Amino acid sequence: MRVPRSHPRYRSLRARELLASMVDEGVADRTGLIAHGRGEAFDYFLGERTPPEARLAASVAAYRLAKARAPVISVNGNVAALACKAVIALAKAVPARVEVNLFHRTEKRIDLVASYMESLGGRDILGRQAAGRIPGLAQPRAKCSREGIFSADVVLVPLEDGDRAEALKKMGKLVIAIDLNPLSRTALAANITIVDELTRAIPLLEKYVRMARKEPARHARLVRGFDNVQNLLSVRDRMARNLMDAER
Amino acid sequence: MRVPRSHPRYRSLRARELLASMVDEGVADRTGLIAHGRGEAFDYFLGERTPPEARLAASVAAYRLAKARAPVISVNGNVAALACKAVIALAKAVPARVEVNLFHRTEKRIDLVASYMESLGGRDILGRQAAGRIPGLAQPRAKCSREGIFSADVVLVPLEDGDRAEALKKMGKLVIAIDLNPLSRTALAANITIVDELTRAIPLLEKYVRMARKEPARHARLVRGFDNVQNLLSVRDRMARNLMDAER
Repeated sequence: MRVPRSHPRYRSLRARELLASMVDEGVADRTGLIAHGRGEAFDYFLGERTPPEARLAASVAAYRLAKARAPVISVNGNVAALACKAVIALAKAVPARVEVNLFHRTEKRIDLVASYMESLGGRDILGRQAAGRIPGLAQPRAKCSREGIFSADVVLVPLEDGDRAEALKKMGKLVIAIDLNPLSRTALAANITIVDELTRAIPLLEKYVRMARKEPARHARLVRGFDNVQNLLSVRDRMARNLMDAER
Repeated sequence: MRVPRSHPRYRSLRARELLASMVDEGVADRTGLIAHGRGEAFDYFLGERTPPEARLAASVAAYRLAKARAPVISVNGNVAALACKAVIALAKAVPARVEVNLFHRTEKRIDLVASYMESLGGRDILGRQAAGRIPGLAQPRAKCSREGIFSADVVLVPLEDGDRAEALKKMGKLVIAIDLNPLSRTALAANITIVDELTRAIPLLEKYVRMARKEPARHARLVRGFDNVQNLLSVRDRMARNLMDAER
């Protein structure tokens, strides 16, 4: 069934249809659709625009990724469904490894998402071999790749669950999150949180990684002055103001 | 796959799993999961509690339902999945007809949702025969039952799309909406909008219908002083304040 073009929210509804179709492909999980809906509401409070706080966080994150010894981008079903090509481009720019890591983990789905990314140009996608363990998580969610997340120093977790973000930080990794809820456990657990919509944030991060390579000194200054919690509170205030000023 | 009980957001995640399972049953649509997620975010801003504004709107709505000539409760996939028994109890208390009306309408799904409601005790569920048309909507979304929504004077639309809420109002019906977004087109189009989570709002409405039958004069006073847009702006301000005061 098609949403009629005459519908005023055609574009947003069409995006929903597309993500729903990725559930049929097995790439996204049904519960990922609910998580996507939550994000939609927070993005509505952002005015569906990248806020200055997200630009700052992305600049800092880009520097950390560019300087990392072993950076890894963790990809779940929604990330693969919505931003596969953008993630591959970012991984190439850093360069970083890509690891598939699913909340609803089955070996079959790991292989399916990895194969999907490979079909769109992803190389050496990690996740199928998962001999590493993240301490403090119940099985099978503790599983990770030994050469990927387990030995990474910097991990980018777009759309990550709070539990795993906290566990990764406890392992001593620098955690960079992309999360539309500025007060989520993931947002608060991460060292650097980019409060922005995924498909806007990943290309922005790629652009900033390229800039951080050219002008490392400028980005290094931003890193020194950066306070993640203050930055999150600033976005939170922005959302509340947007809500107060919303047209009716 | 089960969410481990050790997970801090076990209850919320479990609710998601349940709604997702109703997609497998065919009762809810996949895109309904995204809509549910949006609602979750707004409910988070309400502190997951019924606000005073929703109690007021529900009191007014209860009076209108109790006094209606031909009240109808419109049920979509998410409403049936999440609140089937509560809707049946409310319909009995009013008494009102229940009509299945789906955003992604197919005759097969209409029959499936109606049968699901009947299996849980619903009687004379309308929707399978849909000779009525709602002016201004594209097909097949314009379809409705002649003896149900088409000839109703008061229509309760929990979780309705903005397009249809507006079209029903243009038909001259009194529209009562349940919607967690106080600035959605549905919320603004309705005559009375209850900004609350569905499974809290429906039993509250049932309770108030019973009270309105006992003390109609008290409820009639509330109806005279009620301004839906002012009430919506008050909830909107409450959400913004909650967001500003949120713990970190």
